[in-house]
Amino acid sequence: MNNPIGIISMQFVRPFTGAHLGLFSDIKAMGFDFIELLVPEPEDGIDLSTARTALADAGLGVVLAARVNPRRSISSEDAEARQGGLDYLEACIEAAEGLGADIIGGPLYGEPMVFAGRPPLPRSDAEIKARADRMIDGLATAAAKARAAGKVFALEPLNRFETDMLNTTQQGIVAVDMVNDSGLGLMLDTFHMNMEDQSIPDAIRMAGTRIVHFQANENHRGFPGTGNMDWPATLRALVEVGYSGPVSLEPFRRDDQRLALPIAQWRAPAEDETEKLKAGLGVIRSNLMLAGFAQ
Amino acid sequence: MNNPIGIISMQFVRPFTGAHLGLFSDIKAMGFDFIELLVPEPEDGIDLSTARTALADAGLGVVLAARVNPRRSISSEDAEARQGGLDYLEACIEAAEGLGADIIGGPLYGEPMVFAGRPPLPRSDAEIKARADRMIDGLATAAAKARAAGKVFALEPLNRFETDMLNTTQQGIVAVDMVNDSGLGLMLDTFHMNMEDQSIPDAIRMAGTRIVHFQANENHRGFPGTGNMDWPATLRALVEVGYSGPVSLEPFRRDDQRLALPIAQWRAPAEDETEKLKAGLGVIRSNLMLAGFAQ
Repeated sequence: MNNPIGIISMQFVRPFTGAHLGLFSDIKAMGFDFIELLVPEPEDGIDLSTARTALADAGLGVVLAARVNPRRSISSEDAEARQGGLDYLEACIEAAEGLGADIIGGPLYGEPMVFAGRPPLPRSDAEIKARADRMIDGLATAAAKARAAGKVFALEPLNRFETDMLNTTQQGIVAVDMVNDSGLGLMLDTFHMNMEDQSIPDAIRMAGTRIVHFQANENHRGFPGTGNMDWPATLRALVEVGYSGPVSLEPFRRDDQRLALPIAQWRAPAEDETEKLKAGLGVIRSNLMLAGFAQ
Repeated sequence: MNNPIGIISMQFVRPFTGAHLGLFSDIKAMGFDFIELLVPEPEDGIDLSTARTALADAGLGVVLAARVNPRRSISSEDAEARQGGLDYLEACIEAAEGLGADIIGGPLYGEPMVFAGRPPLPRSDAEIKARADRMIDGLATAAAKARAAGKVFALEPLNRFETDMLNTTQQGIVAVDMVNDSGLGLMLDTFHMNMEDQSIPDAIRMAGTRIVHFQANENHRGFPGTGNMDWPATLRALVEVGYSGPVSLEPFRRDDQRLALPIAQWRAPAEDETEKLKAGLGVIRSNLMLAGFAQ
């Protein structure tokens, strides 16, 4: 398969601001087809029209990654946070229109856990049901708006420490089917799947044509090819379900074995990682290319 | 190999109190050799001598699991929390003496993250170094006391969301080697390794004779045999390094695919899980038994 393969902007810099548009041509030169860009915040100082031109000049595509927080949380029990979530998803659609992106992915349901300092807490059956209902309501509203704008939201389950809304691929499938709107599809990330699913290839086959975005990450989140992920089996499953959409890499490498290192915290690259990124891209592109062949 | 195989008390009940000593014979009857018991808290109402007798009567061994928190944290920058950590580890040794346990395992360094509602935060190089130094100092003090009592602490790296002190097996090896005391060894848990190590079998081989306790958990933490863990390769590596110590199961099963379910929160079993536990035990015991054979 010839899926476009991209790289997350955070690989290079965070925040990605208007001063970093020159990275687009570097990323293209490394061999990537698109950048996965965090939806710009006002303080990032990115003029969407300028950025769109820079993407076109570099010949680089773009997929957007939504950034939720406790105040942008369509599933929250707080009405203001729910509205904040809806407003944010609408702003994401506008950003996609401005940048010329078709897909906006991420944990759209809000309710971040470890990254918001929220511990796992017990919930009653009624609370679980109410939060799920709010999630589906909010997703339905957002999906309709995305569809009207010709965009699609890609709903991403996260591991159990990052959220308590959707963890497994099966839960993601149920949510997408409940919303049942072409403005909402599923996004799968192998890092999370490796913590939550029984079998990554089986989960991909189960998700099938609902998949609209895919992130190919190692078990430890480093460069593809440096961990224990079974890339041939994973990518064969992706080919088997006919997935022709984007495949994004998010290799937040370790490259540092100091004791007491906060590895889940974003760190700037300590060196030029071009060769490692190209090799990681090669692992995914080569395996994906060969996944369609019997032998 | 004929390693003793055990099961964590939380599988059945939490808190495990003086009223639950009858579970010992149930656990033995399922085929387990030991119970991994959370170090009793005063409010659990467990009389150590009574519990020791109940264990002996049931023919069940015991390994202890330490429970740290932000106030029991030898690596903390707060002097009171550090002392609380040291006092707690000393209390663990006393509990081991009272119960007749030889091994006390867990994230002894303190500093819990997601379960204490602490988000990943950036740290300066100086802070990273200072926290690591405090961890090693505290472990050295605790290890000397354990050794004097004929006990051993088993230091457990946790995944990046549960702590920022030790995540990889390699970091655990460095810490154990820095302390260099027979009162401190390494505990490996395949659930965490699957998120942090390049290869679980390679990590086991690297850790070698430092391993004093092992937890055999699925990638998604359910019953062994229901996930993607490569048990033959993992257990062969354990046999290869000559590990003859305890192997513990901690299958916090999902068995519930409701949306918005807080899966990282402890939940009581919804049904009698005896048959699943026996099958999970069978997967580990059978693979471990065969791991020593060439074919």
